[in-house]
Amino acid sequence: MSLVYKLIIAYDGTNYGGWQTQPNAPSIQSHIEEVLKTVLRHPLSITGSGRTDAGVHALAQVAHFHFDHEIAVKRTLLSLNALLPPDIRIRDIQLAPTHFHARFSAKAKIYHYHIHLGASRDPFKRLYSYHPRYKVDLELLKKAAKYFIGTHDFSSFANEAHKGSASKDAIRTIYRLDIIEEEGGIRLEFEGNGFLYKMVRNSVGTLLDIAKGKIPIESLPSIFEAKDRRKAGKSAPPQGLFLIEVKY
Amino acid sequence: MSLVYKLIIAYDGTNYGGWQTQPNAPSIQSHIEEVLKTVLRHPLSITGSGRTDAGVHALAQVAHFHFDHEIAVKRTLLSLNALLPPDIRIRDIQLAPTHFHARFSAKAKIYHYHIHLGASRDPFKRLYSYHPRYKVDLELLKKAAKYFIGTHDFSSFANEAHKGSASKDAIRTIYRLDIIEEEGGIRLEFEGNGFLYKMVRNSVGTLLDIAKGKIPIESLPSIFEAKDRRKAGKSAPPQGLFLIEVKY
Repeated sequence: MSLVYKLIIAYDGTNYGGWQTQPNAPSIQSHIEEVLKTVLRHPLSITGSGRTDAGVHALAQVAHFHFDHEIAVKRTLLSLNALLPPDIRIRDIQLAPTHFHARFSAKAKIYHYHIHLGASRDPFKRLYSYHPRYKVDLELLKKAAKYFIGTHDFSSFANEAHKGSASKDAIRTIYRLDIIEEEGGIRLEFEGNGFLYKMVRNSVGTLLDIAKGKIPIESLPSIFEAKDRRKAGKSAPPQGLFLIEVKY
Repeated sequence: MSLVYKLIIAYDGTNYGGWQTQPNAPSIQSHIEEVLKTVLRHPLSITGSGRTDAGVHALAQVAHFHFDHEIAVKRTLLSLNALLPPDIRIRDIQLAPTHFHARFSAKAKIYHYHIHLGASRDPFKRLYSYHPRYKVDLELLKKAAKYFIGTHDFSSFANEAHKGSASKDAIRTIYRLDIIEEEGGIRLEFEGNGFLYKMVRNSVGTLLDIAKGKIPIESLPSIFEAKDRRKAGKSAPPQGLFLIEVKY
């Protein structure tokens, strides 16, 4: 009988081509599959809760895999982490219910996007936040963020998904979008029932375009209505984005 | 007349062979000299408050240079940072008194050493802290740290300095060595009137050797007395070390 195991994974995405296995770039997924194969002596493929792009980080990405035998989870965890590069850590392995699926069972996800607002760039934040070179109107940013909360068609904020992962529709619910002040800047906390491809980065980029006066806040409703990616702002860079939690 | 300028510099030491210009590795110093030459249109050499090794970081390294003309500091700062790689930032340029010397005028220095004590390594701390693979007895560490405070001959904790930077004597005063709990671990805060080559890392390494039971705390006085590097513990790895402040 096939057992299902759930992995909780943290990674610094700086040195990878993203979560997903791709032909010519090292991926988080392929690294983990490789060490699983070594430790469990069996080729395995894992399924993540969703992709993260090159440079995007995760505190608790979730993935699952099927395996025919029971695993000594504690010992396996140590073996896997001993073989993994130090910028990828498996935080936990758990036996999951047989119907568990990292992507389809997910009820909600939390992403944080860090924006550094210091006068000059901080060498220690360069890989973990975005430092805009223009003035950000925080009040305007907070006002504009409210438009994203609730149930909307987010087509204008979604890039074309790669083949095989197209969503049937683009309607998603954002439960909260909080703007929290933190040392040196702010973070945008997104919690929603699902996120389209590049939706967080495109939303942040659009919010920043509003906060710097490039897009008027009044045009936000028509940007949503257009269902056209070209109407919204540009994508915010990847290094500010962290996948914080997947809820099941 | 030659003017003296003081630079305050932050850097992430991960990708460099250290502060000092060396034949075959990129250094922080050589990067700064290069952009100064470009911006001020004159070859210049800068003198740091002291070296930091490969992988060691700085929040406020200090350096000085001589220049014959007055500098528009604000504009120069922007130009230099625009040309520097993002892991090196000049935080300030100030006109200094003519007798100012970054190394010889220094009255005290503060270094922090970060130790991560989580059960597994944190991918986001790997370049900025040391994660011991053994149990650290914090009470023992705190007790042992007290031996380092005050005026001592630190020969047992100093590596041979490279030629040209040998110290006449090895007597230094540590004003404080505080062990502060922080998220995920501790940091050791050293403040002293001067530090010999590798003195902080060798002190931390010795403290950790005591805290894991490899060196008995009772032998610390004889380790100091021996004035022999081989009697103390090993050197703690570079990435946990930050130069925080140079006082004048």
